[in-house]
Parts: sequence; C-alpha cells; structure tokens
Amino acid sequence: MEKILHITLLYDFYGELLTKKQQEVLNMYYLDDLSLSEIASELDISRQAVRDQLKRTEGILNEYEEKLKLVEKFEEHKRSVSQIAQIIGEIEKEKGLTAEIRGKLDEIKEITKNITD
Amino acid sequence: MEKILHITLLYDFYGELLTKKQQEVLNMYYLDDLSLSEIASELDISRQAVRDQLKRTEGILNEYEEKLKLVEKFEEHKRSVSQIAQIIGEIEKEKGLTAEIRGKLDEIKEITKNITD
Repeated sequence: MEKILHITLLYDFYGELLTKKQQEVLNMYYLDDLSLSEIASELDISRQAVRDQLKRTEGILNEYEEKLKLVEKFEEHKRSVSQIAQIIGEIEKEKGLTAEIRGKLDEIKEITKNITD
Repeated sequence: MEKILHITLLYDFYGELLTKKQQEVLNMYYLDDLSLSEIASELDISRQAVRDQLKRTEGILNEYEEKLKLVEKFEEHKRSVSQIAQIIGEIEKEKGLTAEIRGKLDEIKEITKNITD
C-alpha cells in the first residue's frame, strides 16, 4: 500500500517524462489495478515482460526523484502549509479579533490552499 | 538579461538531468560568463560547436519545463508566499494585538520563508 502510494506520487510528478508505453503499463497496474497476467494478455506479451517493464519504469521514476526530489519537496510544502493552517486556527481562537483581522486570516487560508496544488 | 535569468532558473531545476558535458558548457556560458570563443578554446572545439551545444541544451531544459512546469509552479509559490507576507504585514499594523498573536504571526512568517526554498 505504502509502495503503491509512493509510485503513484512519483508518477504524478514524473509521468510526463516517461514514454507512452511506460505510462500505459504503469496506468494499467497502479491506476486500473490490473494483475500482471491481465496486462500481459492485454498487451500480448509475457507476464515476465510486464514485470520487467514495471520494475524498469519504477527504477526510472526513482532516479528522477533522486535527482529532482520533487516528491520530497512537495511533502515538505504540505507540512509547512498545514502548520500555517494550524497556527491560524490558534489565532482565530483568540478573543477580541476584529472582523477585519478575521477576514485577512481567511485570505491567508485561501492562499495556502493553492500552494500545494 | 531576461533570457539569462530564465535559463539559469531552468538550469537550477533541471540541471541534474543534463549530462556532465552539457552542464559544463552551460556553466561556462551562463555562470562563469565566458564567451563562445573562450569556451571553444577551453574545450578545444569550434565556436559553432559550442553554439550548437548551448542551443541543444537550452532546448532540453525548455522541454523539461514544458512537461514538468517546475519553474512556473515555483513562481506561483513565490507569489503566494509574498501575498501571505503582505497580509501578515497588514494584520501587524492593527492596534491591540496581543504579544501572543504577534508571536504566532512571526511563526507563520518563519514558515513561509522555507516554502520557496
């Protein structure tokens, strides 16, 4: 499960750098949830060839991540944004905030929503 | 100037995906600010070969950006973060903020600093 999530996230970021063929096999396995045998039959290649191709493609995605670290940075951004949201929640609990300040806090929340998109 | 900045930013993001040779020529031209002739003489290739290689490498960087749009996203993040900083500046001008709230606003500023790193 952990691995599926990881590969899916890598694929989200680096999928565009893969060939159509590589994208197809990854889609079938991780998004459409087909088995190796089903993919083999669909593409008319051996089950082992499917397995090899998946392994190779996952290797390529991991290499991109090692070089660019987009997923790592994305996770860091998500943490930062959720920290900001938490602090704003704390400020909002304070008594005596003017409507003006509350409005500005809402603006910040709105902006942070876009940051991890 | 605009172009140099753009290529330098692309190189920041995608430089790791280039070969050592491609990195070397780009470094010499954009970071060390050598002329085509100086690079040609340094690498013992023709001036035209240097020009071709630069052009090809810039093309590769532009292709990565078309696919991954990291620079575009980075610029958006920077805009979001500077909007947050601006709103916090406005809140800080309000009278009657407790030291507690000021402390929390500082925390948010601190976090936003890391977001575009």
